Amino acid sequence: MTQTIPATMRRVALAARPKGAVTPDCFRIEELPMPQPGPGQFLVRVIWLSLDPYMRGRMDESKSYAKGVEIGETMQGGAVGEVIASNHPGFAVGEFVVGPFGWATHALSDGEGVRKLDPARAPISTALGVLGMPGHTAWVGLNDIGQPRAGETLVVGAATGAVGQVVGQLAKARGLRAVGVAGGPDKCRYAVEELGFDACIDHRAAPDAKALRAQLAEACPDGVDIYYENVGGKTLEAVIPLMNVHGRIPVCGMISWYDLGGLGMGEVPGPDRLPRVWRTILVQRLKVQGFIIFDHNDRFAPFEEEVSAMIRDGRLKYRETIAEGLDAAPEAFIAMLKGGNLGKQLVRVSDDPTRGVKA
Amino acid sequence: MTQTIPATMRRVALAARPKGAVTPDCFRIEELPMPQPGPGQFLVRVIWLSLDPYMRGRMDESKSYAKGVEIGETMQGGAVGEVIASNHPGFAVGEFVVGPFGWATHALSDGEGVRKLDPARAPISTALGVLGMPGHTAWVGLNDIGQPRAGETLVVGAATGAVGQVVGQLAKARGLRAVGVAGGPDKCRYAVEELGFDACIDHRAAPDAKALRAQLAEACPDGVDIYYENVGGKTLEAVIPLMNVHGRIPVCGMISWYDLGGLGMGEVPGPDRLPRVWRTILVQRLKVQGFIIFDHNDRFAPFEEEVSAMIRDGRLKYRETIAEGLDAAPEAFIAMLKGGNLGKQLVRVSDDPTRGVKA
Repeated sequence: MTQTIPATMRRVALAARPKGAVTPDCFRIEELPMPQPGPGQFLVRVIWLSLDPYMRGRMDESKSYAKGVEIGETMQGGAVGEVIASNHPGFAVGEFVVGPFGWATHALSDGEGVRKLDPARAPISTALGVLGMPGHTAWVGLNDIGQPRAGETLVVGAATGAVGQVVGQLAKARGLRAVGVAGGPDKCRYAVEELGFDACIDHRAAPDAKALRAQLAEACPDGVDIYYENVGGKTLEAVIPLMNVHGRIPVCGMISWYDLGGLGMGEVPGPDRLPRVWRTILVQRLKVQGFIIFDHNDRFAPFEEEVSAMIRDGRLKYRETIAEGLDAAPEAFIAMLKGGNLGKQLVRVSDDPTRGVKA
Repeated sequence: MTQTIPATMRRVALAARPKGAVTPDCFRIEELPMPQPGPGQFLVRVIWLSLDPYMRGRMDESKSYAKGVEIGETMQGGAVGEVIASNHPGFAVGEFVVGPFGWATHALSDGEGVRKLDPARAPISTALGVLGMPGHTAWVGLNDIGQPRAGETLVVGAATGAVGQVVGQLAKARGLRAVGVAGGPDKCRYAVEELGFDACIDHRAAPDAKALRAQLAEACPDGVDIYYENVGGKTLEAVIPLMNVHGRIPVCGMISWYDLGGLGMGEVPGPDRLPRVWRTILVQRLKVQGFIIFDHNDRFAPFEEEVSAMIRDGRLKYRETIAEGLDAAPEAFIAMLKGGNLGKQLVRVSDDPTRGVKA
């Protein structure tokens, strides 16, 4: 399958670090000469770009678990693409791959962190969502950290997001009561009617943590055994007093706090919520554990086996929100950080021949 | 060994709940007729009363892991005593016991939660300290929750307190670098010169968390792998940014925050320290786990076997701070909450015949 390779490529570079919320002028779209694969390299045409909340952290200067993006560099990101030229013995032209190709129409790779995809097994875009990093994150956090038991109650924020939608459905499959928190009535309806959550609370309709807590308490009559933490903020504050003895809190994100910046963040106005959270950890003997999915590659195979089977037989549903074209990536990313997506946020950078859909 | 049983006993009752710091008028000392053991009961002459930070929580009305003390009731507390009258087939007059006898000169018991002591094995007062609840707490928190590995660095607050003194010495015995935080130069000198800590920082000499952090950073050149949490407050704030990837924080107390009251505590003035702590839990993949020693009774035997052997051959040292007479208990308790004790805080309620020391 030989393709005509264009003379230029486009990419989204970090133009400026955000001060608080991300704005469009943090990004710059650039056209560059198309790179040529050197020895041991291959060239990928990016089809699907993944937009994920963790990328917000990479835009800050401060220390995080991964090196941030430097000003002028291509925004980091996972993507699915097709090999269109190759000097690598392991990757042939026409093969579909997922890897860290960044916010760009094309990327060179030496195969590091790249995995081949079989379009017959699942839609290739799912390698960025339910069968990729977000699904893996949901699965590891729920199972390995959350250690769920049938009959327990789980709460997850961003319930219709890329991670939350999988957490809730996996929890239901394991016999838990699953209660979501999401922004807006449409998402909440979708969580309950389509994803099978037992209840979903609209945090936008709750004026403060106390009001949210009252609704959560009603939806969780036996308390909360697992709070799957990916939002922080008001939801965390609402859930903490509802935690049962020996509850677990896997922490994989805190999107509501990302605009505070990195670990070098300045002072956040009070009240100080730490003493109460800390005291609850003690009195209720909670386990709070942060995790980064890249530490858990050894758990990818069992995750993929289980979840791909659930997708094939319809036990696990998912949604994708698709932005069209690389130039739409900044705007879609900003919208996603504000909760604009339902399910996995993707950018269709170019045609997906396995879908037969034009971009 | 028949003893003359006095006609009256004395006890310390909770007179009023503290508003913030505990004050002497929270307590009332009362004289009551000596109770007589009914069927299946025995009467204990209290010798050593234990004073522990957890008792502060029992004085509050709000929910905690154990039922609080009601106004007018005897203050709860572990104590060591001698059986002086018995209608219980398992407990004979003259036997030494440790149990929940409370702040009193005498107590009735049906044997619930009571354990016999062998004075030949260790001084009976140690059943309230290094070989009792505080030692057990140190051992479980360090080993089962902290999962220490040789070469790692541990930080513990209240380093010369009943728990901290054991945590530091156990950590050293396991090949860790042990760094303490304590109040005042005498305690810090004692921690290093007598207990064998590698370093001990005086938090009273540090004007704020930032200054304390700078000193801790110097004492922990390889970062902190285990922060054994029993103090909260400034020490917690200082340590958090020093935590290494995959660090562990066993949480067994937070004495610096107890005067904030219980879980129903009102708002604590800002800044809000929660976002930064929460983000560090994520980025550094920390495990923060609260524990209450009463959940870990199955680990008492291995704890006692190891630590009693360490005491016998001199590998584990300990100190006791002794207040004389039951009437001194309130004052000693208030002083302990402010850090007035070195090692285990005890009250000598009556003669300990195994020491041959007059009260």
